[in-house]
Amino acid sequence: MFGDKIKKDKSFELGFGQKNYEKSVRFLNKDGSVNIKRRGLKGMDNVDIYHWLITTSWKNLFFMIVISYTIANLGFASVYYMMGYGNFGGIIGYDGPSRFLDLFFFSAQTLTTVGYGHVYPNATNVSSVAAIESMFGLMGFAMATGVLYGRFSRPKAVLLYSNRALISPYEGITGLMFRVANTKQNELIEIEASVVISYNDPETKKREFDRLPLEISKINFLPLSWTVVHPIDEKSPIYKISKDELMKRDAELIILIKAINDTYSQTVYSRMSYKAFEFEENARFVPIKQEAGANGKISINLTDIHTYNKTI
Amino acid sequence: MFGDKIKKDKSFELGFGQKNYEKSVRFLNKDGSVNIKRRGLKGMDNVDIYHWLITTSWKNLFFMIVISYTIANLGFASVYYMMGYGNFGGIIGYDGPSRFLDLFFFSAQTLTTVGYGHVYPNATNVSSVAAIESMFGLMGFAMATGVLYGRFSRPKAVLLYSNRALISPYEGITGLMFRVANTKQNELIEIEASVVISYNDPETKKREFDRLPLEISKINFLPLSWTVVHPIDEKSPIYKISKDELMKRDAELIILIKAINDTYSQTVYSRMSYKAFEFEENARFVPIKQEAGANGKISINLTDIHTYNKTI
Amino acid sequence: MFGDKIKKDKSFELGFGQKNYEKSVRFLNKDGSVNIKRRGLKGMDNVDIYHWLITTSWKNLFFMIVISYTIANLGFASVYYMMGYGNFGGIIGYDGPSRFLDLFFFSAQTLTTVGYGHVYPNATNVSSVAAIESMFGLMGFAMATGVLYGRFSRPKAVLLYSNRALISPYEGITGLMFRVANTKQNELIEIEASVVISYNDPETKKREFDRLPLEISKINFLPLSWTVVHPIDEKSPIYKISKDELMKRDAELIILIKAINDTYSQTVYSRMSYKAFEFEENARFVPIKQEAGANGKISINLTDIHTYNKTI
Amino acid sequence: MFGDKIKKDKSFELGFGQKNYEKSVRFLNKDGSVNIKRRGLKGMDNVDIYHWLITTSWKNLFFMIVISYTIANLGFASVYYMMGYGNFGGIIGYDGPSRFLDLFFFSAQTLTTVGYGHVYPNATNVSSVAAIESMFGLMGFAMATGVLYGRFSRPKAVLLYSNRALISPYEGITGLMFRVANTKQNELIEIEASVVISYNDPETKKREFDRLPLEISKINFLPLSWTVVHPIDEKSPIYKISKDELMKRDAELIILIKAINDTYSQTVYSRMSYKAFEFEENARFVPIKQEAGANGKISINLTDIHTYNKTI
Repeated sequence: MFGDKIKKDKSFELGFGQKNYEKSVRFLNKDGSVNIKRRGLKGMDNVDIYHWLITTSWKNLFFMIVISYTIANLGFASVYYMMGYGNFGGIIGYDGPSRFLDLFFFSAQTLTTVGYGHVYPNATNVSSVAAIESMFGLMGFAMATGVLYGRFSRPKAVLLYSNRALISPYEGITGLMFRVANTKQNELIEIEASVVISYNDPETKKREFDRLPLEISKINFLPLSWTVVHPIDEKSPIYKISKDELMKRDAELIILIKAINDTYSQTVYSRMSYKAFEFEENARFVPIKQEAGANGKISINLTDIHTYNKTI
Repeated sequence: MFGDKIKKDKSFELGFGQKNYEKSVRFLNKDGSVNIKRRGLKGMDNVDIYHWLITTSWKNLFFMIVISYTIANLGFASVYYMMGYGNFGGIIGYDGPSRFLDLFFFSAQTLTTVGYGHVYPNATNVSSVAAIESMFGLMGFAMATGVLYGRFSRPKAVLLYSNRALISPYEGITGLMFRVANTKQNELIEIEASVVISYNDPETKKREFDRLPLEISKINFLPLSWTVVHPIDEKSPIYKISKDELMKRDAELIILIKAINDTYSQTVYSRMSYKAFEFEENARFVPIKQEAGANGKISINLTDIHTYNKTI
Repeated sequence: MFGDKIKKDKSFELGFGQKNYEKSVRFLNKDGSVNIKRRGLKGMDNVDIYHWLITTSWKNLFFMIVISYTIANLGFASVYYMMGYGNFGGIIGYDGPSRFLDLFFFSAQTLTTVGYGHVYPNATNVSSVAAIESMFGLMGFAMATGVLYGRFSRPKAVLLYSNRALISPYEGITGLMFRVANTKQNELIEIEASVVISYNDPETKKREFDRLPLEISKINFLPLSWTVVHPIDEKSPIYKISKDELMKRDAELIILIKAINDTYSQTVYSRMSYKAFEFEENARFVPIKQEAGANGKISINLTDIHTYNKTI
Repeated sequence: MFGDKIKKDKSFELGFGQKNYEKSVRFLNKDGSVNIKRRGLKGMDNVDIYHWLITTSWKNLFFMIVISYTIANLGFASVYYMMGYGNFGGIIGYDGPSRFLDLFFFSAQTLTTVGYGHVYPNATNVSSVAAIESMFGLMGFAMATGVLYGRFSRPKAVLLYSNRALISPYEGITGLMFRVANTKQNELIEIEASVVISYNDPETKKREFDRLPLEISKINFLPLSWTVVHPIDEKSPIYKISKDELMKRDAELIILIKAINDTYSQTVYSRMSYKAFEFEENARFVPIKQEAGANGKISINLTDIHTYNKTI
């Protein structure tokens, strides 16, 4: 039960606060991100452009690049225009706007170092700016290379979790369990799971965090799916606690999975959480069908990962 | 024996299923890849272009680059052609096809930013497209840089395994053994092996996976070759089991080797498997000749790694 | 107490010397850098340009790039000028200085590979130099790409430490404690702290280094702030030692924190030190207010991290 | 003594052979490279170009780049020349050799994408080759970027070892010791040493490898120098063995050091070996002078690392 268990391992802490929150909280979002907002860092180093460039969507990145490119060209074109179009050879525009356009495209040709040369700088001032612009172009491009490589090579574990965590019959008692599978083509090895339950304790008036012992906490491969099981025996903090009671205590199951991506030998991390309303009592996962093909290849269908039957 | 051994370490699992497959299966291919197919991920994130670009052969990558380059140039040339060749300066083609070719090469000169300038965009619409094309060229090239670096720097352990796993006399009893050597010029350090045997258990009707204890499971260097030995004593799950019986039970020896590549300080992984028909009874590896040269350099010939003698 | 404690763990050493320094020393600076100067490496490999390029400020790097670019162009322009401006097509300068300027900009256009072509090399000698220059330009740019990516991807833990380390009431006794928080948007996981106190021992006449046991030395997340506590019980080397005495003994609290940056799966390190004059006796940290928003998001204000009250 | 010691830890092995070599061997060179030659890998994957590009000297790399660049340009110029100089606009050479030179420089301008355009391809065949060449140029440059970054970012521990290993008085008995220091500007943390002695055992007729227990085997920092000490007590395999005897047995002290480079959070490795003739009996290291400057900065002179006094 929640109240009368002894906290044996004082050295365990999840790093979240122990306030008995009045409102319901969710520590981890479904996508594994931490549900926290740090405020008040005025002037401090809490803007991390590279972090944004690496983690934003491809769509955002694409727009950012296009907009930066356009703004840079507008800026340099304005400088060239103010210095006078007469300093350039090959300008064919006969009025202001068309001359500005010529200089805009000259700027683009300089920034990307394509440099056709039908328009070219013909005086010291504009030549100097063009020399700076082409260097900036190269630097910007060097940054883009770094960002793209950073995005490509960033360690990601894209795991598929079952929609529900089940409280199922398990070896005479019951177990709290969920399933997880790798959705990517690369293999994960040395997969380790640790599972924590967090809840408001009515006696201590604190938010408690208890690690749940697992039947198996580390596997060597994850070729198929893995059913992670916490056996609910007398020592379990959720022994004989119903789903309703867990919901009342605002319980959250916090899952931390660590593995090695075999292609890049990178350690990857995945996090997930189930709130108590995402638990399912008296239910049992339907085993995922494994088929051995003619060539000895084992085949599974991952859409089955969420499927369970009610036992009552 | 298979049946009466007690599973002491319940926390061990390889991550493969325990179905008693009717057909013979091979969990790991000879090249160490996992012999599994995940289906049914409709619309899910199971296409990983970067993974393909990193792991495909150099030949495939080369063709992919050439084809993408050609298609991009055909695409942009078509756009330019539709906008009208009159918008370009320097076109010398006198009919449709030759003008298209001129624009195709203009596109190539823009995409690679070589920009000779004998052909150049002379109107707003085509200048805009060219500005976009040169930026795309740079981005594509940035991606290529990332892919090439990713391929180069990817951790790889290229180990040479003996063709056969032998059941040889070993310190009064017998041992299951194989040999492994590094084929690359860089050194491997802190090499760790773990070996698992998988088989159909006729009693439990399940596929069992048992870790085989090794005489030595970790070595500091792998300058020469390493003979990995599982002593077949009474506690071994293959004690007094013949090769025929192992074949009948569809046994597979699964080998996981982990090491550090000294040049890049990267952890590298190698996997291999021997099916029972690749075992050899009553055989003994011929020691690999080590010669100390005049300069104190020790020299070995790795082609000897496969060589064994029959002992009966 | 300092004098009569028994050094149990002989295998512990921080790597600093044990001289009883006459002047006050600080082993770690506030920014975590080691306060040491290695001299006398004449001709040895102690200049590490890449290290400088990676760790210097963006401002310094920017100036270094601009200056290198200018010097390279001045150098190549001089070579071209000495070879004779008549070897170039398109030079419009009518006197020495203006011809040199033309060649300077030609050099910039070559180094950045923008190559407009209104000025071009028209003889073997200058064409050869230009071929070399453009290759150098590409190599320099390749290096810049590597440096920029190296800077971006360098593991950094930007932790915020409380200004003071407090000696506060703690579970019936007192504790030495400080607070730490993550100032970046990415999450830190598996945070581990180890704390060492260094002081001049009047008896042994040596500089002693003692590891201070912590209440909790590892946490899973650092979403909020972490109060690291050393309980000052009888076994503590600072048991019943006042701040004045600690200052007299030139005590320094050395903090080593290790964590994993979740975005890049990199291990990051942070170091800090408090000299005895930065300790505060009879003080207590004010808890940082946690608020659960309507959406269940927990919000904190990190500027509160330094706040403490005097207890007397 | 060598002969009568009991090998307790059978799981220890260095990975070298145990032949009782007739000639004297050195397993590790002074620079830490493994003194071994693997032969006989005909047709196998033992050529690793990237490994060479990463580990060769900067001088070799520079020559390799210049030569590749020259050969590529000669090759493409030959193709252009065979296709006919008439297919190009802007050729000014009036005879074969000067036309070839024009095409050689055109090739260089294409490969580097500088593309001035005073010479330009004017027919389909040469335009096609130029389109291919500029793409090859970009790919080659992408590879160069990868190689340069790989060289820059490669983990390297540049440690300075004392010239001699000393057998010195140590806490009542004697100890085998050497000193090591960091020569780079970045800090090394979590430095771990392990030391093995290898020798021909006259009784077993085998090459033995014994790990030597160290007084301290791990330190947190390496700001100054570290004296690594093996106490020669009764359990030591070199207890009461003289330097002469060690030389007769062709003894080699093999040192493996592992640390974390603080700037890049990379694990780095360093290896060294002392042959018995590099031991010094009855000698004692002179302590390296540490000075605390006015600003509290501690200063040392690393050239003192080799200095020792004879004690007899």
